[in-house]
Amino acid sequence: MTDRKEELNVAIESQAAKVRQLKAEGADKSIVDPEAVILRTLHQELAALDGGKKTKTAKNSFTLKTAKGTKDYNDKDMAIREKVFSTITKVFKKHGAVTIDTPVFELKDILSGKYGEDSKLIYDLADQGGEECSLRYDLTVPFARFLAMNGKEYQNLKRYHIAKVYRRDQPAMTKGRMREFYQCDFDIAGTYDPMIPDAEILRILCEALTNLDIGKFTVKLNHRKILDGIFEVCGVPHDNIRPISSAVDKLDKLPWEDVKKEMTVEKGLDEQVADKIGEYVKLKGGRDLLDKLSQDKVLTANKNASEGLADMALLFDFMDAFDITKLMSFDMSLARGLDYYTGIIYEAVTEKSAPPKMTDGAVVDDSKNKKKKKASGKDGEEEFDESTVGVGSIAAGGRYDNLVGMFSGTNKKGEPNLKIPCVGVSIGVERVFSILMAKQQSADIKSNETQVYVISVGDSLLKERMELAKELWDNDIKASFMFKTKPKLDKQFAVCEKEHIPLAVIIGRDEMDQGMVRIKDMRSKDAAQGGGVSIQRTEMVATLRSKLAEL
Amino acid sequence: MTDRKEELNVAIESQAAKVRQLKAEGADKSIVDPEAVILRTLHQELAALDGGKKTKTAKNSFTLKTAKGTKDYNDKDMAIREKVFSTITKVFKKHGAVTIDTPVFELKDILSGKYGEDSKLIYDLADQGGEECSLRYDLTVPFARFLAMNGKEYQNLKRYHIAKVYRRDQPAMTKGRMREFYQCDFDIAGTYDPMIPDAEILRILCEALTNLDIGKFTVKLNHRKILDGIFEVCGVPHDNIRPISSAVDKLDKLPWEDVKKEMTVEKGLDEQVADKIGEYVKLKGGRDLLDKLSQDKVLTANKNASEGLADMALLFDFMDAFDITKLMSFDMSLARGLDYYTGIIYEAVTEKSAPPKMTDGAVVDDSKNKKKKKASGKDGEEEFDESTVGVGSIAAGGRYDNLVGMFSGTNKKGEPNLKIPCVGVSIGVERVFSILMAKQQSADIKSNETQVYVISVGDSLLKERMELAKELWDNDIKASFMFKTKPKLDKQFAVCEKEHIPLAVIIGRDEMDQGMVRIKDMRSKDAAQGGGVSIQRTEMVATLRSKLAEL
Repeated sequence: MTDRKEELNVAIESQAAKVRQLKAEGADKSIVDPEAVILRTLHQELAALDGGKKTKTAKNSFTLKTAKGTKDYNDKDMAIREKVFSTITKVFKKHGAVTIDTPVFELKDILSGKYGEDSKLIYDLADQGGEECSLRYDLTVPFARFLAMNGKEYQNLKRYHIAKVYRRDQPAMTKGRMREFYQCDFDIAGTYDPMIPDAEILRILCEALTNLDIGKFTVKLNHRKILDGIFEVCGVPHDNIRPISSAVDKLDKLPWEDVKKEMTVEKGLDEQVADKIGEYVKLKGGRDLLDKLSQDKVLTANKNASEGLADMALLFDFMDAFDITKLMSFDMSLARGLDYYTGIIYEAVTEKSAPPKMTDGAVVDDSKNKKKKKASGKDGEEEFDESTVGVGSIAAGGRYDNLVGMFSGTNKKGEPNLKIPCVGVSIGVERVFSILMAKQQSADIKSNETQVYVISVGDSLLKERMELAKELWDNDIKASFMFKTKPKLDKQFAVCEKEHIPLAVIIGRDEMDQGMVRIKDMRSKDAAQGGGVSIQRTEMVATLRSKLAEL
Repeated sequence: MTDRKEELNVAIESQAAKVRQLKAEGADKSIVDPEAVILRTLHQELAALDGGKKTKTAKNSFTLKTAKGTKDYNDKDMAIREKVFSTITKVFKKHGAVTIDTPVFELKDILSGKYGEDSKLIYDLADQGGEECSLRYDLTVPFARFLAMNGKEYQNLKRYHIAKVYRRDQPAMTKGRMREFYQCDFDIAGTYDPMIPDAEILRILCEALTNLDIGKFTVKLNHRKILDGIFEVCGVPHDNIRPISSAVDKLDKLPWEDVKKEMTVEKGLDEQVADKIGEYVKLKGGRDLLDKLSQDKVLTANKNASEGLADMALLFDFMDAFDITKLMSFDMSLARGLDYYTGIIYEAVTEKSAPPKMTDGAVVDDSKNKKKKKASGKDGEEEFDESTVGVGSIAAGGRYDNLVGMFSGTNKKGEPNLKIPCVGVSIGVERVFSILMAKQQSADIKSNETQVYVISVGDSLLKERMELAKELWDNDIKASFMFKTKPKLDKQFAVCEKEHIPLAVIIGRDEMDQGMVRIKDMRSKDAAQGGGVSIQRTEMVATLRSKLAEL
């Protein structure tokens, strides 16, 4: 606890200095704002550590707080959240996706042996008699379990799932690492002709990120078979391929020298082999790189590499048809952590303000970060891992053809009874929320959708306000009024301002007697008391509708 | 296990007989269908008990199933579910509601002492070091905890929350009683002038149920203070008021004689007192009943009763203004289980096919049902309890002014530091799903939203299909194509039929060469190969848009 506080205080000091400097340099708002958000979040976490006020009740004393690593999402948070979900969902549905919901907990056995050493982060339910259960750790394993159970009906499936997952990790709000957080997954399951669903997944990813309005982004792209082929032709022993791959995966945050050291000193690779790998993994480009690799006779003689290159050639054609090639970077240093990928892999990064990936422990202390990194490795990371992907990385995924088979049981030959190949992507929505929250002031966020406030002047007119509201509701107009018998005019106006309610229907006794109402645009700066236009009450709904259509 | 199977077999036999009889009588579809659904559900549960196939993998043997009392929601379930949620959410938003999300687990202390003897149904998380946590049991207690923590910012709040809650109860699929299920809550928190938010909650409930299209319904309405006043003037000792109230609550499923017996034999009430209560609780009506009670000098001399009657007089005025009085039944037998209600209480029931409430254990064995009922009582039931509300009851709620204070700590006088009165309603969405699922065949439910299928005739034309799909996506048209290099025409047509895709864009080599495409309405019964209208490719988007607008 105290350690973390110290870390936070150091981080706050350093981050505050950074923000001050950026401001002094006259840096662009889009650069300063995200940094300011990080600063605010650090402050929040520190406050939360100090907080959790002890509350005494007659019966018992308890701490009034949410559980560690969880938080409430208030109305403003939820308004942003819903906007993000609806933007993403709209794209998913445009591509024919259905949604499927699985329980928040699974039998413990279902999750066992799927997450490597990160299995220690799984939340178990208490033994209260009955089955052993655990909270889901991601959405991919439950999806694979669903396919294994219902595979006959769902040989072909485009499904999305937006839901919370659970990890007993050390929370760090600055990195959006919570113990309860959202994942937003889209997967295509089924046997199809090569690379067609893979291309559509990438198209979906590009559409979603474009529509989310989070600035420019690039999708880094690689193929596991090409990578494995490279390791093979460079001379990496078979059982060292995954560890070496995991070292390569750190190239986006560590210099080559450090990665090489990990390969040679820690993982015992021959230095010449490491140098050969170094030549390959620094390559990046587009179709030009594919052409270059395809002319590499050593590489193309390798079965894995040659299959991967054939896949990539097809994929480039399909990406051209989908007009997304321009957003891709074919990047030989992308390795992705998860063991279960079998084909293409990808990771989207935002272009602006992309500091080094921060993956463990410390917030700003990079040396510590590196050290812990080495200890934990990247095995067991899931498809898009909120807890280990740092600022900049916004979505990730790949092809995994063998996961469903792990649940289907095996035949006498040891082959899975059911093989449903899958390709999927996971969008890091927590990171998207942070970016979007940074773009606006909390007070500017409209969290309800009320369009019209029914206001009385002078008299109470409660029943009349109720009848007017009822008429508006009957006509599908979003309306509210003050729950007071005799509301003050300035208080009613204040509600409109606070809740960003654009229109008001204003009534007084005289107007009611004459069958009139006043309609006022609350965004205008008329004198509070006056303003607005008097119309026949019978015209009210039509007038409001036409005004609302203009908003 | 075997007991339950036997129960199910008995229930299936009896229900099958009922369905046969209804059919033989030529009963209306709206009567037969819900009964058939119950039958199907019984069969499903039986199959599930028999099911859960053991799967052996190389490493270990495990059961491939979801945890007890939980289930996957497939694409068809989710399509109905989303329709229900969006209908309800639309009504909530029309009334100015925001949404707030709380974590799925809370500190154990937060939930302690809130659910009476049903606390045994709370799921605890395993002790893996750190805080003791439990899965939420309802959405009301977390909401009260949120208000207690953030009360200063949220003195006035209309919030809804649709989310899953968890109870380690004996599952019974026929009654929609699962261990993981949805609640759908709307609450208004804050201090306002009397009965105004209460009236709006009732209006919201009526709007939501009307829009859900589940048939006719009535809202039973009562007031805790009137009920308590009646018990007081009849002579119920103070500490027996809640137990007697809980007996009265069973009048909707037990005859008066049984309830009286519970009051006298079990709960030691004087028989004359019970008879006096009997006179009151058989009363139901509308404003006429309010007038009648208001002329009852004995009753109006009681403080509680007189306050309750004054509330109801106001409420009837407001319900008139909101035009919902016609949907209400002022019903003195409605008592509601939860202890924490302090004002009006209500329960919506569907009018069609409303068999007796079934609340525990057995599915059809009523005697057993009654026996178990007596044993468990109704204390601790939550606001709208999926697990204890039977067929017919569809929503419930009431005013609870003291729950938030339980979390805020007390001052020296023992009064809560923070008092935020609340009134709320919970819609039993699981029951709504059942009703709506019963209305349609699974095959008729369109679970994706695809509008246009891009089809090729004869040649592969894969890249051309991709380019067409891309053009449609760019124009926000929901489009798919077959992930095959050389798809067969009949297979492509079959997808349109299975997925209810209304339109197709059909291309052949000749058409492509001429810059033409064919648009076909897939719902028409043209000869499969032919049909459709040839148009310029440049007209494709505009033509599809106008056709989609007509759908």
